[in-house]
Amino acid sequence: MSTHFADRLISAIRRKNAPVCVGLDPLIERLPGSLLSRAGFAAQPGDVTGAATGAGAASHALLAFGQAVIEVVAPLVPAIKINIAFFERYYAAGVRAYFQLVRYAQEAGLIVIGDIKRADIGHSSTQYANAHLRGPQRTDVAAPDAVTVNPYFGFDAIRPFVEIARDTGRGLFVLVQTSNQSADEVQGVALSDGSTLGERVAKLVQTWAAGEGLIGAGGYSCIGAVVSPRDLESTERIRTLMPHCLFLVPGFGAQGRTARQVAACFKPDGTGAIVNASRSVIYAYQEARYREGCGDDWRHCVEEACKDFVRAVRTSLPD
Amino acid sequence: MSTHFADRLISAIRRKNAPVCVGLDPLIERLPGSLLSRAGFAAQPGDVTGAATGAGAASHALLAFGQAVIEVVAPLVPAIKINIAFFERYYAAGVRAYFQLVRYAQEAGLIVIGDIKRADIGHSSTQYANAHLRGPQRTDVAAPDAVTVNPYFGFDAIRPFVEIARDTGRGLFVLVQTSNQSADEVQGVALSDGSTLGERVAKLVQTWAAGEGLIGAGGYSCIGAVVSPRDLESTERIRTLMPHCLFLVPGFGAQGRTARQVAACFKPDGTGAIVNASRSVIYAYQEARYREGCGDDWRHCVEEACKDFVRAVRTSLPD
Repeated sequence: MSTHFADRLISAIRRKNAPVCVGLDPLIERLPGSLLSRAGFAAQPGDVTGAATGAGAASHALLAFGQAVIEVVAPLVPAIKINIAFFERYYAAGVRAYFQLVRYAQEAGLIVIGDIKRADIGHSSTQYANAHLRGPQRTDVAAPDAVTVNPYFGFDAIRPFVEIARDTGRGLFVLVQTSNQSADEVQGVALSDGSTLGERVAKLVQTWAAGEGLIGAGGYSCIGAVVSPRDLESTERIRTLMPHCLFLVPGFGAQGRTARQVAACFKPDGTGAIVNASRSVIYAYQEARYREGCGDDWRHCVEEACKDFVRAVRTSLPD
Repeated sequence: MSTHFADRLISAIRRKNAPVCVGLDPLIERLPGSLLSRAGFAAQPGDVTGAATGAGAASHALLAFGQAVIEVVAPLVPAIKINIAFFERYYAAGVRAYFQLVRYAQEAGLIVIGDIKRADIGHSSTQYANAHLRGPQRTDVAAPDAVTVNPYFGFDAIRPFVEIARDTGRGLFVLVQTSNQSADEVQGVALSDGSTLGERVAKLVQTWAAGEGLIGAGGYSCIGAVVSPRDLESTERIRTLMPHCLFLVPGFGAQGRTARQVAACFKPDGTGAIVNASRSVIYAYQEARYREGCGDDWRHCVEEACKDFVRAVRTSLPD
């Protein structure tokens, strides 16, 4: 894994002709009934979700579901984003399942983004970076190729991740503009220079990204950014402010961002971003339009939704 | 645990006459040699730290160390803060040790703050809140009484924690001003209204804290704030901006904040803050001034350092 992270990601995107990423944020309550029964759950999964005595069984079901999704999407997309929150929910057993899935996805040829959103003062961030970017050295688990981190502490909290990323061909995506409704309470605050805090963080992250030894052959840094598009103008501004950063773009699908909105996250040459969809793909078997075509074969529904997602993003790209 | 979190904490502070908290951020490399050998480590612990095959043994050593520190400090202080980063470093085994220590500390009569610094969009933050504030329902592990959270997403990310806190007598501390050197890169940004981002976040958190049903009998909310003091003027301003928030004050000791600086985090009546020291207490056996008095009894060094810490904070309080 010694090649530069951004170069690896760009090359994988080219190979699949798909600047997209499937997000794995699985809730036990929404998993296919057939999978839950095989994992030892009752017909009413709601009964056991809250019972932490079921943490082992829940983690087992999340692992089985994640492995199936990975098998379905691996031929179609270059990358997968696994959100640790949905695994951490089941404590140690869930954390183990998360690291097992990271390895499983890498063995299926996917680039894995660990969606961990960690940050702390440097001394403590070093521990997170070691855990999540260097990772376990065992055969059944692995560290992801990149992780997401939070900018609120400034660079101290980011540096430990950058050092490991630089040394191991891995990467990180710093939160700049998030996709939730209240994001503007902090990120939209008006600064004395007329810009917003989100734009200031964008400039900061670009400075970090342009640090010595961090930019790959393709012109992108191992430090990228999480940028959820708002209006066209602000998205174009942020894209211009961060020439060396790959954007991880959340919110396509269930969160309602349109193809037109995400298009502004790309550069005119069609590079510079990878678009994520989670719920609209992994829960496709719960949507009527896919059930009709795929019946009880939930994997087939996920496959169709993933293909639709790839097509929608391709269509929206700059020519 | 149905009593309001802030009331429980204030009452525990009164009982111990000590508005302090010991931070448990243990690095394997710095644990006492005698403890490491008993936990199966070689004489040179450096040899095994990096080896993830040792994650189980490392977690076992962290657990043993944490239990010993808890036994020593429980009679002296009302609360302990456990930083999950130092446990998460050892994956699933470390996460299990973290939750075991939470329970061990609660059984020793301590209020436990889980220093997790999590936040994500609401859907994902719900998972973190369930994991860390509702917690496992088993006999050997437990959820902490309060956790730390990151404000970058705005209230969406905080709400799931607030709801569980309100319903279960637990609490949370939102990061406002952190103790690391680069904190001002984001928190110190100048706003259009002449204040700083840190002050804006302080106002926001105060608004959240004053929400319906969140304020306890003592006048403090279950939503507190992490505030590391800088200059006296800015600290006094933040203290005034947040009348309903208890401050968790990091950085005393190893991080160099003085008693005078932390005094500004308290209200004139001596309430309103709890001061944390981590490394200066838990690694006291590595400091000459304690080794001389305590020799090889590392627990005794920790006890003396904890007493000194309590005395230093008491002395600095408003009369």
